[in-house]
Amino acid sequence: MDELKLRILTDGKNLGNGILKVDGFINHQVDSALMDACGRELARRFSRVSATKILTAEISGIAPALTTAMHLGLPVVYARKSKPITMPDQIFLTLAPSHTKGRAVELIVSPEYLGSGEKVLIIDDFLATGQTIMGLVRLAQAAGARIVGIGAVIEKTFEGGRDLLAPLGVPIEALAVIRDMSEGRILFAD
Amino acid sequence: MDELKLRILTDGKNLGNGILKVDGFINHQVDSALMDACGRELARRFSRVSATKILTAEISGIAPALTTAMHLGLPVVYARKSKPITMPDQIFLTLAPSHTKGRAVELIVSPEYLGSGEKVLIIDDFLATGQTIMGLVRLAQAAGARIVGIGAVIEKTFEGGRDLLAPLGVPIEALAVIRDMSEGRILFAD
Repeated sequence: MDELKLRILTDGKNLGNGILKVDGFINHQVDSALMDACGRELARRFSRVSATKILTAEISGIAPALTTAMHLGLPVVYARKSKPITMPDQIFLTLAPSHTKGRAVELIVSPEYLGSGEKVLIIDDFLATGQTIMGLVRLAQAAGARIVGIGAVIEKTFEGGRDLLAPLGVPIEALAVIRDMSEGRILFAD
Repeated sequence: MDELKLRILTDGKNLGNGILKVDGFINHQVDSALMDACGRELARRFSRVSATKILTAEISGIAPALTTAMHLGLPVVYARKSKPITMPDQIFLTLAPSHTKGRAVELIVSPEYLGSGEKVLIIDDFLATGQTIMGLVRLAQAAGARIVGIGAVIEKTFEGGRDLLAPLGVPIEALAVIRDMSEGRILFAD
């Protein structure tokens, strides 16, 4: 997606250690028009997987998951990292190691909103190590739901997430695929 | 907004102590079409305030703030509750007492994305005690920005938020105004 790649090159910052700062348009400040365009493109790429629900993780997954959901006409569930008082006692919970936080975070979904009949499309802002997305996969599997696709706004191929997720046998799409961030570079895969 | 009120009456749950569970369409699972309609209506109500930026708080403010931003063609900044590694050392930080969490939470915005020239429209899912929104007001004021409006999807008038915010002298709008939740009721103001 050229619009996104151009924005990453102009406003993104390579902070070293594989950390890409996109706080100015994706993660803290959100460019709403760009995020809408990302959702439209992800919806187009997954238009044939017949998803019934989109699943993401708070916090930064919410924006791309919501715009994708709007374009597919689907509800979106975001896994919580702490259990709100409105959630029932019986929940689906998994631990996902966080590369950027340096510790494991909880991912929690209420069984009220993830059922065995669902065909789940997972959307997140980043596909990096794939650990957060793998946590979402476990939650969906615990609910008896079926994963039908995985989409991300930005992928960093050198952190191996796609290899981790490949055995699931579902389509994996990313709108900007970065293959190299060494020595201050931001190099796309194509 | 009749569509929203009807949904609150059919899918919302009064859990007592003023707690309204809307996890099925706003807070955990999001009805993307309804959220888009809420954003469109908030954008319509604030079409004349000439905002340059929308400000909200993670987590549940993100969805309504993003859809409002899309309809107004504006960027949205969501205040973080913990400082990500991509944020500079110098930040705007305030503490906001959380009614539902029973403790104060930090609200953090990077000075990179909130400047003195900004005209800020604050959007959140709930206007209840007004403490979170007042925290956002303090952040914007610390940045030298001007508040031009405050919008919420749902207001609970009996928790006093509107009175707290009234001295700011800006338009305050909510799409569903609940005046009474005693004894299991959900009564709207009009």
